[in-house]
Amino acid sequence: MDFSSFLTSLATSFIIFVVLMLLFTWLSRKPGNKEIYYPNRILKGLDPWEGGLRTRNPCAWIKEALTSSEQDVISMSGVDTAVYFVYLSTVLGILVLASVLLLPVLLPVAATDDNVKLQSQSTSNGTFNDLDKLSMGNITEKSSRLWAFLLATYWISLVVYYLLWKAYKHVSALRATALMSPEVRVEQFAVLVRDIPPPLEGQTRKEQVDSYFKAIYPDTFYRSLVITDNKEVNNIWEEMEGYRKKLVRAETVYLESKTNGNPEGTKPTNKTGFLGLLGEKVDSIQFYNEKINELIPKLESEQKVTLKEKQQASAIIFFTSRVTAASASQSLHAQLVDTWTVMDAPQPSELLWKNLPINYYERQMRQYVVYVIVALMIFFYMIPIGIISAFTTLENLEKLLPFLKSVLEQKAVRTVLGAYLPQLALIIFLAILPKFLLFLSKTEGIPSESHAVRAASGKYFYFTVFNVFIGVTIGGTLFSSFKTIEKHPSQIVNLLASSLPSNATFFLTYVALKFFVGYGLELSRIVPLIIFHLKKKYLCKTETEVKEAWAPGDLSYATRFPGDMLILTIVLCYSVIAPIILVFGVIYFGLGWLILRNQALKVYVPTYESYGRMWPHMYLRIVATLVLFQLTMFGYFGVKKFVYAPILIPLPILSLIFAFVCHKKFYRAFQSTSLEVAASHLKETPTMDQIFGSYVQPSLSHEKNEDDQFEDALSQVSRSVSMA
Amino acid sequence: MDFSSFLTSLATSFIIFVVLMLLFTWLSRKPGNKEIYYPNRILKGLDPWEGGLRTRNPCAWIKEALTSSEQDVISMSGVDTAVYFVYLSTVLGILVLASVLLLPVLLPVAATDDNVKLQSQSTSNGTFNDLDKLSMGNITEKSSRLWAFLLATYWISLVVYYLLWKAYKHVSALRATALMSPEVRVEQFAVLVRDIPPPLEGQTRKEQVDSYFKAIYPDTFYRSLVITDNKEVNNIWEEMEGYRKKLVRAETVYLESKTNGNPEGTKPTNKTGFLGLLGEKVDSIQFYNEKINELIPKLESEQKVTLKEKQQASAIIFFTSRVTAASASQSLHAQLVDTWTVMDAPQPSELLWKNLPINYYERQMRQYVVYVIVALMIFFYMIPIGIISAFTTLENLEKLLPFLKSVLEQKAVRTVLGAYLPQLALIIFLAILPKFLLFLSKTEGIPSESHAVRAASGKYFYFTVFNVFIGVTIGGTLFSSFKTIEKHPSQIVNLLASSLPSNATFFLTYVALKFFVGYGLELSRIVPLIIFHLKKKYLCKTETEVKEAWAPGDLSYATRFPGDMLILTIVLCYSVIAPIILVFGVIYFGLGWLILRNQALKVYVPTYESYGRMWPHMYLRIVATLVLFQLTMFGYFGVKKFVYAPILIPLPILSLIFAFVCHKKFYRAFQSTSLEVAASHLKETPTMDQIFGSYVQPSLSHEKNEDDQFEDALSQVSRSVSMA
Repeated sequence: MDFSSFLTSLATSFIIFVVLMLLFTWLSRKPGNKEIYYPNRILKGLDPWEGGLRTRNPCAWIKEALTSSEQDVISMSGVDTAVYFVYLSTVLGILVLASVLLLPVLLPVAATDDNVKLQSQSTSNGTFNDLDKLSMGNITEKSSRLWAFLLATYWISLVVYYLLWKAYKHVSALRATALMSPEVRVEQFAVLVRDIPPPLEGQTRKEQVDSYFKAIYPDTFYRSLVITDNKEVNNIWEEMEGYRKKLVRAETVYLESKTNGNPEGTKPTNKTGFLGLLGEKVDSIQFYNEKINELIPKLESEQKVTLKEKQQASAIIFFTSRVTAASASQSLHAQLVDTWTVMDAPQPSELLWKNLPINYYERQMRQYVVYVIVALMIFFYMIPIGIISAFTTLENLEKLLPFLKSVLEQKAVRTVLGAYLPQLALIIFLAILPKFLLFLSKTEGIPSESHAVRAASGKYFYFTVFNVFIGVTIGGTLFSSFKTIEKHPSQIVNLLASSLPSNATFFLTYVALKFFVGYGLELSRIVPLIIFHLKKKYLCKTETEVKEAWAPGDLSYATRFPGDMLILTIVLCYSVIAPIILVFGVIYFGLGWLILRNQALKVYVPTYESYGRMWPHMYLRIVATLVLFQLTMFGYFGVKKFVYAPILIPLPILSLIFAFVCHKKFYRAFQSTSLEVAASHLKETPTMDQIFGSYVQPSLSHEKNEDDQFEDALSQVSRSVSMA
Repeated sequence: MDFSSFLTSLATSFIIFVVLMLLFTWLSRKPGNKEIYYPNRILKGLDPWEGGLRTRNPCAWIKEALTSSEQDVISMSGVDTAVYFVYLSTVLGILVLASVLLLPVLLPVAATDDNVKLQSQSTSNGTFNDLDKLSMGNITEKSSRLWAFLLATYWISLVVYYLLWKAYKHVSALRATALMSPEVRVEQFAVLVRDIPPPLEGQTRKEQVDSYFKAIYPDTFYRSLVITDNKEVNNIWEEMEGYRKKLVRAETVYLESKTNGNPEGTKPTNKTGFLGLLGEKVDSIQFYNEKINELIPKLESEQKVTLKEKQQASAIIFFTSRVTAASASQSLHAQLVDTWTVMDAPQPSELLWKNLPINYYERQMRQYVVYVIVALMIFFYMIPIGIISAFTTLENLEKLLPFLKSVLEQKAVRTVLGAYLPQLALIIFLAILPKFLLFLSKTEGIPSESHAVRAASGKYFYFTVFNVFIGVTIGGTLFSSFKTIEKHPSQIVNLLASSLPSNATFFLTYVALKFFVGYGLELSRIVPLIIFHLKKKYLCKTETEVKEAWAPGDLSYATRFPGDMLILTIVLCYSVIAPIILVFGVIYFGLGWLILRNQALKVYVPTYESYGRMWPHMYLRIVATLVLFQLTMFGYFGVKKFVYAPILIPLPILSLIFAFVCHKKFYRAFQSTSLEVAASHLKETPTMDQIFGSYVQPSLSHEKNEDDQFEDALSQVSRSVSMA
């Protein structure tokens, strides 16, 4: 890519960004769009345009984002989001501090040398552009100017250590403060126990669990909730909920038809057969009411059966004290590790109920199987996609789906499909990859959504870094020079390093595209806006349906974070080789911070809270990136035949020691709640019944009190125990 | 070594053993020796010759050892000893099961081949003996007879897995039963807390600790004992105790002199100067009384100063419930791992008080420094010893110690010294090695004696296995063929393997010597017997002094176990190559079990109880030995050019998986007490005051109650807290 096309691409991206910004300013001020641009504020019961924010100033949102405090983020969007901002600002800090020293020093040092020119003169097919002159590739071999680049490597490493250490300390304090909250948080009073051994003869699961925990915690045990196999009861309940929704919709339609000049109104009807297309035509309101009334007794009897007979080897235990719950989750309960496994309870909303009864060894096996699958996928994902691409040619498509033949034979369609079909498998694969990785993580037997998301995010990180960064860099070079590698395996690093500077421009364009277009779309929310308006106009009838149409979802840092890490990896690895990339890195993370701050405060609503548990993963991956950077630099100094390159050897070792010390000092507090934190005072005495109730699934909750059920999975301490 | 000299050495060892056995039978029946042969029974208040055991039958002790149950061992000698017997019987079981298949199959297979004969004919300097004919060395290369040896390798591995799994399960149950004991064990009610941060302004350490734990455990916290710097007070107390002992001794001497026909008696005297050799002569009884009376007020004031002003950043916390103590020891208390570190309290008798105030980072640093020192010692211990040996020649000795010149010039002395002096450094080094390793382990900052002993035992294991087994086997071979290795590093295994069979005879003799002479001396206790009688006759005057003279000490498995492991390593590694070694292994562990059972029941008294915590180490080292065996066999099959050798590759992998699964399943219960175990019922309610008292060091215990000391390190919950 030559310099002018690089500038063109940059300019195009920037223009798109400006257009999207203007769109945002214009659209966000229309009251009809407030559900798209301020859903978080609306759901929290706040005024969308509080304090005269609906001004003509198109930069008002920037000012607001900049002046917002961390406390605002926590109260609007939770600790997890705040931790994500700590990540963003730490990375931004690293890049800014790196720029401050590297740009004024390294650019002149590189520009005044002339290696690129020399090389392009000596080799006939040499091409070079103005950007290459600003990179380390322009330094002649063995030049003493390389000292400046070597010191720059040290500078960046030290900056990373310093800022990461500060950030870890800060996040640790954030987590502690959140956990010390004087408000009652239900998950702090419960633990999750799995791998319960089979009960004794004549003992129900419930009795077994109650007597076990009552013996260990005579004073603080409140009651237990035995996990049941809810498949049946959930099915019935969902069916009923479906009818309820349809009933409300039918009633709304009926009400609307009355106002439309027809005082009698038309009763909505529907067909009872397949998809409402076939079968008898009936009065909807009457039909749904009948269906619901039919299901109620069925649901109640299934509830009883489920609670009594479908109890599983897992339970949630409630304590009257936060300290007991915190200490119970950290203690070994049974002599053998594979029975009575206790861990801290996830929030009720994020519990993966189906995974709870999976036993210890199955969990372990599933985990290893998933790891193997992911590893294979990372290394060999091109193979199945290649095979699928080979089969999805136009000819095959015509054979398999003959009814498409007439369409496929049109020339325009043929051209477009011919161009995209071979890559279709890859495009589809990359689109569904995050979902597939989340599915795999859940298959491991992980008990909570947030944990599964963390696991999926890790897998996605390895996938992107390995395939995009290493893949592109080594790319074709590797295969063409495969014979060299076979003879000297140690030259892989050299090879990687020597192909680095020529790839710098490619990555510059990539980063620029990513931040201008990506963040422009993020801020303007064009796609959700269009979908919302379409749905509102043509599909939604009831209040609930409209609300569902604008539900903003959460920040989904699980997929965001690996993307950021990829950018950081690219920027960090090229920071010394082509320092100009730092400018783009600073813009990416600066713009990201600003725009996501706006989105966190006004748009996204978190679905769960893990109190910053993803931080240790974030920090570890930054260190991993740093090590990759240090190794790359070591290799590249080798290519430049710089005899002082071994001075860099202590750096990766230092990084490992740094990671180890941080892990030792901080990590345990992220694994579990420390007791001094759990022992802080509560504002009010917790209502245990309410805490218990929040863990009961809606399909199992009774609407009336029943006192005679003291043996089922939800009941109070069973009578036999409480009388003993 | 030829066959006849091997037989001679075997016969000599056996005769020594028989003589020692007869000596034991004769000596142990004399009532005057009962303190040497039955000290454990005497200390437990039992009759040494209970139930007509003092018969003429010289094998009565064997019968008694064989019929004793594990419960007897636990009640006489504790769980640790019982676990050591589980180790012995597991190893014995492994070797017996191996013998049952290997001896009848492999010996004929080996004996009927003739590789050794062929080789000794073809090479001029070949020597062979009858033992070599029974080994795998006698099988010709690529012979299909090697299949038998390959299957034998599998058989042994499977036997080890099976028996180790059973043993681990058994030990885990043993530990649980012991911890569930209905008797009050003081250490189960306490935790040790270290790394306490500096107290707030105007707060004493004691107040800080009390308020911290009272906030977390409002119901079960009893009181705390802040660790103090006891150096001064201990010095004074020890001085006083010394005088007290001397006083008792002087009084006894005085009393004795009265009965000796002199009704007035002679008052004992002593000189007050250096070592009682110089200075004024005074009446001992009066002098010591004066000294003691002088020290009492000094001790009391120092006690007050210590308790109030020398409080350290460490404390022992007492709870009224075993469950709370067990769960507290496993829970994270502070947000940062390096403050308020909590662990289960060791028994009072084994606490290493000096190590308690060492802070987190210092402990970590000390640990790594010690590891490096030990690693250097294992690999390079010959270097300093060689240097010392080079300097300790007769000539240098004469120069340094000229007054010895006349002695050294005698011919007989010269000959003996000339022979031993060069090895003197080595001999001294090997004699003090276990003590030195224990010293190093204590320097790490480990808080309890039993833990330090385990750590020392591990270091000793690596030292012996590395230096004796690998050292002897590779030995000279390595240096002579150093050039081969430099070119082909992968041939180390081959080299090791090809030198194996020729070393088998050497090790056979070593094992035989070790069990016959070693266990003969152990059983007959000749050395302690002689020392006891000499001391009793010439030195001891008082009851206490006699008791100290026969104090049996403990089983000291810390040094015993690495010795056993060395034997097991040798036997296991040679078991397939020269199966005859299995016979010696069985005798070693069989005899060991028998003789140590006798010693455990009658002689040794355990000084502490760690509830089998050394088992995970034992088991892991057996697995390590097994892997070494499997690798050796793989190498040796390679030497024999057996193409099916790769069939052995799954074995080491299987061993690692086995070790991992065992570790996962059982280990955590050895790290800490599981709550279900701690929750079992006690026979009586514990007297908390007594529990607390057992942790107060004698130098700090008050003889009178003082109510006004509510601020010092031993006092009850301080007033400011209890009133809050």
